[in-house]
Amino acid sequence: MARISAKSDNTGALEQLGASIRARRKLQKLSQEALADSAQIDRAHMGKIERGERNVTFLNIVRIAAALGCRTSDILLDADL
Amino acid sequence: MARISAKSDNTGALEQLGASIRARRKLQKLSQEALADSAQIDRAHMGKIERGERNVTFLNIVRIAAALGCRTSDILLDADL
Repeated sequence: MARISAKSDNTGALEQLGASIRARRKLQKLSQEALADSAQIDRAHMGKIERGERNVTFLNIVRIAAALGCRTSDILLDADL
Repeated sequence: MARISAKSDNTGALEQLGASIRARRKLQKLSQEALADSAQIDRAHMGKIERGERNVTFLNIVRIAAALGCRTSDILLDADL
């Protein structure tokens, strides 16, 4: 199965989502590594998610929101999506 | 890469998301096939998304929301996520 990357994202939605995750993480003074571990996501993958370089799955967004202590919809609302 | 299915979803989030998509589609009197075609998603895959049987990618949720004429966050808010 071909990996869908940011190349398929004509709208910039992945970058907006990643920036929203990064902003919430920094507000909580969490390192990217700590957030990745808490969300049980590979550290390198978390970096790509924050940079909008990977088409993140819904369950990973749910896990990231849980690790950030917010609702999944909050991340999207922050991102204006 | 192993496919992450509903088996990995301990929270029921995929089912909630799928039900929210289905409810908005029915409100618009769209068939599942019409929504799939409009969102450029395989028809069989759309059925699995609506039933919460597949870990949908973020860009597919964005495409579905665009096809439904709503914001991506609206789908999550409907789903209480």
